Amino acid sequence: MSSPKFSEIDQKAVDTIRVLAADVVGKANSGHPGAPMGLAPLAHVLWQYVMKFNPKNPYWFNRDRFVLSNGHACALQYIMLHLYGYDITMDDLQHFRQFNSNTPGHPERELPGIEVTTGPLGQGIVNAVGLAIAEKQIATNFNRPEHEVVSAHTYCILGDGCLMEGVSHEGLALAGHLKLGKLIAFYDDNHISIDGDTNLAFTENTEERLKAYGWHVQHVKDGNNDMAGIFEAIENAKKVTDQPSFIRVTTTIGYGSVNAGTHGVHGSPLKPDDMAHLKKEWGFEPDQYFVIPSEVSSQAFTKGAQGAELERAWDEEVRHYKEKYQKEAEELIRRARRKLPEGWEKALPTYSPSDPAVASRKLSETVLTKIESALPELVSGSADLTGSNLTIWKGAVSFQPPETKLGDYAGRYLHYGVREHGMVAIMNGIDAFGGLIPVGGTFLNFVSYASGAMRLAGLSGHRTIVLATHDSIGLGEDGPTHQPIETLAHFRATPNVMVWRPADGNEVSAAYKVAIESLETPTIMALSRQNLPQLEGSSIEKAVKGGYVLNESVENPQVIIASTGSEVGISVDAAKLLEKDGIRVRVVSMPEFYTFDGQSEEYKLSVFPDGVPVLSVEVMSAFGWSKYAHESFAIDHFGASGKYTDLYKAFDFTPEGVAKRAKATLDFYQGKNPLSRIHTAFPHLVQRGPGPYHTK
Amino acid sequence: MSSPKFSEIDQKAVDTIRVLAADVVGKANSGHPGAPMGLAPLAHVLWQYVMKFNPKNPYWFNRDRFVLSNGHACALQYIMLHLYGYDITMDDLQHFRQFNSNTPGHPERELPGIEVTTGPLGQGIVNAVGLAIAEKQIATNFNRPEHEVVSAHTYCILGDGCLMEGVSHEGLALAGHLKLGKLIAFYDDNHISIDGDTNLAFTENTEERLKAYGWHVQHVKDGNNDMAGIFEAIENAKKVTDQPSFIRVTTTIGYGSVNAGTHGVHGSPLKPDDMAHLKKEWGFEPDQYFVIPSEVSSQAFTKGAQGAELERAWDEEVRHYKEKYQKEAEELIRRARRKLPEGWEKALPTYSPSDPAVASRKLSETVLTKIESALPELVSGSADLTGSNLTIWKGAVSFQPPETKLGDYAGRYLHYGVREHGMVAIMNGIDAFGGLIPVGGTFLNFVSYASGAMRLAGLSGHRTIVLATHDSIGLGEDGPTHQPIETLAHFRATPNVMVWRPADGNEVSAAYKVAIESLETPTIMALSRQNLPQLEGSSIEKAVKGGYVLNESVENPQVIIASTGSEVGISVDAAKLLEKDGIRVRVVSMPEFYTFDGQSEEYKLSVFPDGVPVLSVEVMSAFGWSKYAHESFAIDHFGASGKYTDLYKAFDFTPEGVAKRAKATLDFYQGKNPLSRIHTAFPHLVQRGPGPYHTK
Repeated sequence: MSSPKFSEIDQKAVDTIRVLAADVVGKANSGHPGAPMGLAPLAHVLWQYVMKFNPKNPYWFNRDRFVLSNGHACALQYIMLHLYGYDITMDDLQHFRQFNSNTPGHPERELPGIEVTTGPLGQGIVNAVGLAIAEKQIATNFNRPEHEVVSAHTYCILGDGCLMEGVSHEGLALAGHLKLGKLIAFYDDNHISIDGDTNLAFTENTEERLKAYGWHVQHVKDGNNDMAGIFEAIENAKKVTDQPSFIRVTTTIGYGSVNAGTHGVHGSPLKPDDMAHLKKEWGFEPDQYFVIPSEVSSQAFTKGAQGAELERAWDEEVRHYKEKYQKEAEELIRRARRKLPEGWEKALPTYSPSDPAVASRKLSETVLTKIESALPELVSGSADLTGSNLTIWKGAVSFQPPETKLGDYAGRYLHYGVREHGMVAIMNGIDAFGGLIPVGGTFLNFVSYASGAMRLAGLSGHRTIVLATHDSIGLGEDGPTHQPIETLAHFRATPNVMVWRPADGNEVSAAYKVAIESLETPTIMALSRQNLPQLEGSSIEKAVKGGYVLNESVENPQVIIASTGSEVGISVDAAKLLEKDGIRVRVVSMPEFYTFDGQSEEYKLSVFPDGVPVLSVEVMSAFGWSKYAHESFAIDHFGASGKYTDLYKAFDFTPEGVAKRAKATLDFYQGKNPLSRIHTAFPHLVQRGPGPYHTK
Repeated sequence: MSSPKFSEIDQKAVDTIRVLAADVVGKANSGHPGAPMGLAPLAHVLWQYVMKFNPKNPYWFNRDRFVLSNGHACALQYIMLHLYGYDITMDDLQHFRQFNSNTPGHPERELPGIEVTTGPLGQGIVNAVGLAIAEKQIATNFNRPEHEVVSAHTYCILGDGCLMEGVSHEGLALAGHLKLGKLIAFYDDNHISIDGDTNLAFTENTEERLKAYGWHVQHVKDGNNDMAGIFEAIENAKKVTDQPSFIRVTTTIGYGSVNAGTHGVHGSPLKPDDMAHLKKEWGFEPDQYFVIPSEVSSQAFTKGAQGAELERAWDEEVRHYKEKYQKEAEELIRRARRKLPEGWEKALPTYSPSDPAVASRKLSETVLTKIESALPELVSGSADLTGSNLTIWKGAVSFQPPETKLGDYAGRYLHYGVREHGMVAIMNGIDAFGGLIPVGGTFLNFVSYASGAMRLAGLSGHRTIVLATHDSIGLGEDGPTHQPIETLAHFRATPNVMVWRPADGNEVSAAYKVAIESLETPTIMALSRQNLPQLEGSSIEKAVKGGYVLNESVENPQVIIASTGSEVGISVDAAKLLEKDGIRVRVVSMPEFYTFDGQSEEYKLSVFPDGVPVLSVEVMSAFGWSKYAHESFAIDHFGASGKYTDLYKAFDFTPEGVAKRAKATLDFYQGKNPLSRIHTAFPHLVQRGPGPYHTK
């Protein structure tokens, strides 16, 4: 495309965006006007002259993706969405950051035109890397000569804060390695962060850093005015197809304000006289608010309306494609709609107690191997622990630039490197693109490194699946630096996050079934390094409830042992020991709290009835177990380095150790008729699904 | 120092280290032989010819600091400590990675000669940045012309994994900005990570990246053999005093093994025939194990023994210094011994109910302002949220290279940039150096970004104090991306981490008192953005217990409301409403669970007696509260964007909403005589203090 001649209308549009940003934040008396005012020219060029989108169908599969990584500048994004005809109304703009509005304090994915939830700095740019990976993988798998049915650029604006955050390093470095040519990032180089001038803490040579990662780097020196320069840089970036592009755009934060270029305009509204001055300067009436000149709205409207044409043309293209490649076309459409293939779950293996004891990480590998052909949208990977996480199946191709000779862009296995936080943020981006189901492995203890991205997976509703092996002191010799204690509690406390800890093969299959069928809930699957027996009484059907009675034959139990993962087998053996003493013990397997909590009260009370004391058994923090259990056998201290069998023995997590505590629990509650902890005195509101709290 | 002539003994020492590493890992049948074998020449040069240390007093204040950031290579570190006369015996080496040994799977700080616990990749190098910051700050404050009483280099070895991790980016970038000339990092460039060749995922130009951060960069091409080259690079690095130094040392992982240069030697012992071959090659008997040639041990012993001389000379130097600068010398010695100044706590402010309502972040600012002169070792800072966290006191000088004109190296305020994980890892390093108490701020929600470092603060016992403001939905318009829900549960479940959530001014003072007096336990202090009333019945003396009865005048309570922070005031008002209906309500403030858990059972039962139902009230996840409370009023869902008053109303966290649920709790438990949840059926082992689990 040759450069448009930027006219007065374009300048008016830029000024309008700036004035609107000041109005939006001013009316709310809360928010960040500075970055939107500095970024207005870039936003105008992007929306008006660069990006391909259809405001009437924000979910059009072949749209370009846009991510605002400096999410606090969201007034800008809401204004652009409004101008171009998305379902963000003027009324929404006037209720910026108010409760139950469509314009919350940071961009949220459930809103039309918002691809990913941003605000926590650094996440958006790494989501963008995920979006670009997904686009490349799907395009490579589906496009055919003369039929380019998938082709989308990913554009991302990021700020100084994003570049300081470690997660951005992880994502940017991997994007450079992967040579993601359709990823174009704009760095809002405005020299200001909250503490003041970036000279206080951020003096790296960002251009050189990005070059070191393998990015193509350009600099637009006058981002406040030079729309032609911005456009040209984007055109150049598009021509570079074997490198992601980083365009440094030097801007003035709060451009136009008397406090322009200071942190005074970062996070507070402009003063009334400042706003009046600014409006007058740009030909707006100082006492009028939320004004959009008709030539500006009409220019934007016209561009927005072209989106429907673009989508129609794409539909046509897909029809032609389908004539020649029917299977591929149907597959593409299925995936774009996030529909699972009929009967995929039949591939899930089941086990009986006579099957050998196997580590659950190995059971997970078996599931992946069995389902990968039924679910071609599955893309696995690991944060440099492939051989430990067992996340790869035989014959899986690495997603790599083909010239590396290590794989190709059709590949379904991602070598994320030692980048846990980046991995999960990338998986969120892959999920956001659609058409793929991201699975990635690390040690359970290091999912904590990815906390920021896991939480956003829950909030935004990404089907991000983390295979978290080496899930306890059972990992042995690596010692306390690698042994999770608090990790399950941490993520069990996070809304809309599933934390599966399966006890055997059937439960591993159940965990995969629920994880893959839960389109809007991420999963952490805690998997053992050590072998676990196949349990009598387990089944996929029971385990998908999140918690169930393993030994239903025991009637009128005197005590219940509730446990997860590797401790369930030990608990079963403890129950057998107690049986010899004539004590009736029910064993409950509780692989997933959040799923169990979603069952009917009747069902939950059938598992944990009144009058029977419950002992929980799990080799990590007891924290949170008291919501089901009257007593907890746990380790509320760090682990130790040693053979796992030595550790279980030292910590008394043996059938004898568990039996002893079950007996103590029974004795203590004798005659006390304990109430089941399932009861509540008043209704509790628990999140089911993603998103913020809404009342409307 | 002119370059030593590296002799046959030096080569023998290197070979000995390599053979020992293979023996150590081989006997354990677990561990990582490859990196130690590749790094042996560097380690030998460092210990024998570069570093200043005293094996007989590993805590000598003026020692050089050494950090092994790729902690999995710890066989190397243990071998060096043994050779040079630290209290790591041959028997210890022969029990590598075994339970209760002195040679755990990753280096742990409680061992002699280990400065910081490493293993979780990326942490060590950032701890090293903290060590170098502390050295620079203390040296600047205490050294006088002709009296250099503090002068220590920080040496750190890091690997590919460390460089991939985001946290290393944060630390390395800040170190470059701060021009930490005495920090010298060695990059073990061995081209191998667990998944295989680093070409799979790690192809950045690391030298250029480090230069972009402002580091001085060198490359030793033959790290397997070129001891003179290594030594020369270190000498060059020492001469560069206004930049940290990055020395890329290209090595071969598992040098000498038949599998050298492959990931086969990364994490598994060498095969017996491989070991035999290797020993023969280097003049060792193939069937002898753990052999240290006498010339090697005597060379190392001599160097180690010089350490006592060095320390004596330093003592002498300090004596001279004291003659001229008595106050400074006494202060330095006090701080090096981690003694607090007598009576510092008298500076802590107290409040009475007639004092105005103030946000607890503001109360924290008042504490800092009042105690900073009593505690000159306090160094504050923020991850670019100074004006929001209120972490700075009037007149505080920024720790900066003086040429920036933004501060100087004597400064006590650190602008960490938007680098939460880096900040906490740096604070751990500052604490490890000794002589300073690091305090740093961010939003509570973003402490999660620093999970990896917070956990290590607990495990290693660092007095790291995080001021975590904007501690709930009470932050308002920033919305659910910024509003913590699971954060308190996460860290409450982490051993040896205190999570204070003070309710008023007296409790803020109490939180500081305990945080500063707890030499080996880190603190997260959750602080409000909104104003909180000064409570009737609060005091420092009561609050330091972690939980206490606020309204002791209420006798024979029918229901107890237990709450923290901003919800305590609401609970007090709810109690007043219920009083009008003739219901006797006890209000318990629970600012810190871990501290409360450490009180006597008698005390805890006096707070939560049998027969009285307990309702917990906290505007975040209920997870974990059931260990004290029979019912929880909480929000087990994400927050929302809006005015904080609107949110509290929408979520029913009002006196009326709390009273309603207290009434429901009372009604439900009527006649059920609930047992206090303080009781346990068997003893629970809860960690008090740092470190792994030991039985011996």
